This record gives sequence, C-alpha cells and structure tokens, in this order.
Amino acid sequence: MKEIKVAPIRNGTVIDHITAGQALNVLRILGVNEYNIDSTISVVMHVPSKKMDWKDVVKVEDRELDTKMVDKIALIAPKASIVIIRDYSVSDKKRVILPKTVRGLVRCGNPNCITNKSEPVEPEFAVDSEDPIVLRCIYCDRIQVNITDRLI
Amino acid sequence: MKEIKVAPIRNGTVIDHITAGQALNVLRILGVNEYNIDSTISVVMHVPSKKMDWKDVVKVEDRELDTKMVDKIALIAPKASIVIIRDYSVSDKKRVILPKTVRGLVRCGNPNCITNKSEPVEPEFAVDSEDPIVLRCIYCDRIQVNITDRLI
Repeated sequence: MKEIKVAPIRNGTVIDHITAGQALNVLRILGVNEYNIDSTISVVMHVPSKKMDWKDVVKVEDRELDTKMVDKIALIAPKASIVIIRDYSVSDKKRVILPKTVRGLVRCGNPNCITNKSEPVEPEFAVDSEDPIVLRCIYCDRIQVNITDRLI
Repeated sequence: MKEIKVAPIRNGTVIDHITAGQALNVLRILGVNEYNIDSTISVVMHVPSKKMDWKDVVKVEDRELDTKMVDKIALIAPKASIVIIRDYSVSDKKRVILPKTVRGLVRCGNPNCITNKSEPVEPEFAVDSEDPIVLRCIYCDRIQVNITDRLI
C-alpha cells in the first residue's frame, strides 16, 4: 500500500471547499508554475465533502494570499474558505466573499468593448448571479459565463 | 492545525520521484483538466526525497497509464517510478525508461523541419543526453532542450 503522507505545515495557507475541478485554476491564480515552487504545495482534487458533495483542497506552505488572489478565487470557487496557518496553528479562517461588482480581475469577452481597446479603462462587471456565476460588463453589457480563461 | 488527509487508494496509480516542478506537466500528460476529474487525484509538489533532494508525487485513483503516457513522463521526469495499485496492494512497480530514440511524442522546434510541414512524417529524435535531457531531431538535426511545451 502506498500512501502520500502530507505533514502539517508550520506556516502557510489552506484553501478548502474549492469547487471540484477548480484546484488547478486556483494554483494558476496563486501564480504557481513549474519554475517557482520552492516550498511544499499539496493539492487534492475530487474528494468527498459534507458541505458540497465533492471539493478540491489546495495547501501552500510559506505563502499567504493577497486580496486580489482571494477575490479571484471567490469568482471560480465561491464556497472556498481560506485558512491561514502560523506556527502550526490556525491564525485566521474566512470564507471568500463574492462582491457585488468585480473590478480589474476579469477581461471582458467582447473584443470591441472599450476595456479591450488600449484605453485607460479598467474592466468592471456587475455580478448578476452567484451560483453559477454570471458577470455583466458595465460598459458593453456583455454577459460573461466562462470566466476562468479570462482572469487577469 | 489543518491537515489534508490522503487516504490510501483501492485502485489507481502512484507516480513517485517526479522531478520537482514537473507534477503539473505530468497531470497534463495524463490528460487531467478541470472538466474530466471524476476520481480523486492527489498531488504533492516540492517534498523532500532521500533519492533526489526534492520531488513531486502524483496519485490518481481508478486510472492506469498507457505506454505513451509513461514514455512522455520519462522525458520530463526520468527518475520517476510508476506504482500500480489494485485492491489496496501494489500490483506492479517500475521505473520509467528513457529510450534511445523518441518517436511521435514531441514536436520539433524547427518550424521548417519536414515533420512540421503537413507531410506524413512522424517526428523522431535521438536522445543525446539523459540528464538534463537533450533531444536531436533525426530529420533536421535541431537540438531540443525545453521539450515540456512541445509534448504531443
């Protein structure tokens, strides 16, 4: 029998209750790629969850998330919780919060939108629906459903 | 304290001793993406290893690897071992083997190579060096070092 042993971390962040299937996108939001991993990262995908049938979990050592990362995670995993570990103990735990408007996190899918025209206009969306997430561009009214590929 | 519990799997595959940083590329080789995960997948990146300082490990439930996948993993993680689990026990364990020639797994980096010209010619390379891996196209002699992005 072969088991991966995942030791508790001294300092870092656990992102729990990620929408199943979104763990790799969460890693992308964290900026994790093959060239910049210098502390342990654990990912489990498609595990049973009491709250939500199936979930993903990401655990990163020696990293804490900035506000922009947390806001992006809220967009793709609105039920996620962020647990900050310091010195082996939970220092902080919070649910991500999906705001009413989303600014500067997603590109508009309409190529003719003013926000895609090299003008100094930051993309901004109203959150029309939370689950599933539906964003509406405040400039061109384009409805956005698949936002994972358009995260800035 | 928050710990990810990674239960032993009944059936599946453990890919151990992956070159540190290559776990996400191994997932890509396995064809894992957000839309097709229907059994548990665990990934740990940058963990200490007796054999190789740092390593990554990937564990996939209810999947076994085909020859092409194993050959591609050999290209990016030449020290990897593949452990097949059946009914909670190790059914088979083997090291990946880097062949002397690599056929049909990597695209040549030379846009003018015959293998990139819509001709019915399968790309083929000689393995000039194993660690680090260096491939040489048998058609145009182009040396290939960064092959991760050119896996077919």
